[in-house]
Amino acid sequence: MGKVFLVGAGPGDPELLTLRAARLLQEAQVVLHDALVSAEILAMIHTTRVINVGKRCATKLLTQEEINSLLIAYASEFEIVVRLKGGDPSIFGRAGEEIVALLDANISYEIVPGVTSAIAGAAAAGLSLTDRRFAASVVFTTAHRGRNAEALAWDKLVTSHSTLAIYMPGSDYKKLAGQLCDAGLDPSTPCAVISHAGRPTQRVRWSDLTSVRLLESLPAPSLVIVGECARPPHGLQNPIHDAANDGADFGIGEHV
Amino acid sequence: MGKVFLVGAGPGDPELLTLRAARLLQEAQVVLHDALVSAEILAMIHTTRVINVGKRCATKLLTQEEINSLLIAYASEFEIVVRLKGGDPSIFGRAGEEIVALLDANISYEIVPGVTSAIAGAAAAGLSLTDRRFAASVVFTTAHRGRNAEALAWDKLVTSHSTLAIYMPGSDYKKLAGQLCDAGLDPSTPCAVISHAGRPTQRVRWSDLTSVRLLESLPAPSLVIVGECARPPHGLQNPIHDAANDGADFGIGEHV
Repeated sequence: MGKVFLVGAGPGDPELLTLRAARLLQEAQVVLHDALVSAEILAMIHTTRVINVGKRCATKLLTQEEINSLLIAYASEFEIVVRLKGGDPSIFGRAGEEIVALLDANISYEIVPGVTSAIAGAAAAGLSLTDRRFAASVVFTTAHRGRNAEALAWDKLVTSHSTLAIYMPGSDYKKLAGQLCDAGLDPSTPCAVISHAGRPTQRVRWSDLTSVRLLESLPAPSLVIVGECARPPHGLQNPIHDAANDGADFGIGEHV
Repeated sequence: MGKVFLVGAGPGDPELLTLRAARLLQEAQVVLHDALVSAEILAMIHTTRVINVGKRCATKLLTQEEINSLLIAYASEFEIVVRLKGGDPSIFGRAGEEIVALLDANISYEIVPGVTSAIAGAAAAGLSLTDRRFAASVVFTTAHRGRNAEALAWDKLVTSHSTLAIYMPGSDYKKLAGQLCDAGLDPSTPCAVISHAGRPTQRVRWSDLTSVRLLESLPAPSLVIVGECARPPHGLQNPIHDAANDGADFGIGEHV
């Protein structure tokens, strides 16, 4: 009986894989991956047994149950089965369901942690999520829920001394900002929108909950960071709070 | 003028460095590192200019201002200056102060994200922080505050459908659990204590907010995960909720 490695692929830049993830991509006899995993990372896989089990909203490829069954079937045949997930498996990665299925089938597993989107987004924007001057905690949450899920209780997540990192924010920034203000955040609260963190197509936009509605929506995968920590890192000397396109783009990792 | 790379060293296991972090440890002309960075990772550094600027509570080595001055001085002399931090720089890493100092001195910087402790701890315990069955968000916070800091408003962070990852929980689990229950969490809420995540000395203990007070305190660095997601991954078939030492240790990455 083999072992299933739930491996975080990080935000897409192959250099943001961990050394262990890179090694497992070489050693794996089978790799089942999400749609979000980048082509450059898929190119690092040694085996030819590579299955895209990814699903992006409408274009669903396989159900979770089908993925679970595949993992179990492959683990019965091969020693090293890699389940490759964008970001980190334990953060909005549906690892929970797969773990239960593997445990039920008496199959060993290991989580190989990765760089999750909020952390990659903060690095891309050059900011600290828990800057001591502004925040004592950071909340990772998502604006995207299944159709039947309960409405998100934003007021439970919104506090003045905390940063909010919103995964899958969607494209309706006006609606999102409205929900956050309704939950008690000041309309002047800074926010940053980061798209394709760490990739050549990366974009960072600085705004606040009042003017973010004017922003052109950025392509997924994207992230919205809300709170005093989300001020542009130029700091008070040179605040860029326009919500328009001009001037707010950083190159990757270039902040001066 | 050189550039300062704020690099996340992850939880200590060299294999949990990102490829970029590993490359920068080779290329750096100077490395300033925290005390928490492991010896195995320090051994990967090529240059001999390695300065421990780490501080652990009482045994303070350098003030933040002194560290900032060193970064600026080295960046004036060398092309590639690495500031190596345990975990990820943007999560409880004091990157904020260093970024402001660098910007004020007109020095370029880049954040190289890493595997933060909560994510490493979840991987070590084999659990998902946002298991859809139990949680729609995860809060990263810390129980450790400066002497003059305001008391932590736990009630703002505690919600029924969220996971709480507590950095620097200290050794007084009884006090911590009491604060969380006072803030509104049910005393039966599961919690896991993870020490030295991913290291050979790793320990994982499963408990709940009632019985965690009976636990022997585990050595730092450690993490406490609180919430329904923090049930042992054996699931409902074989819950281990004893707070004693026996039987609750996992080997690294071995969950069956």
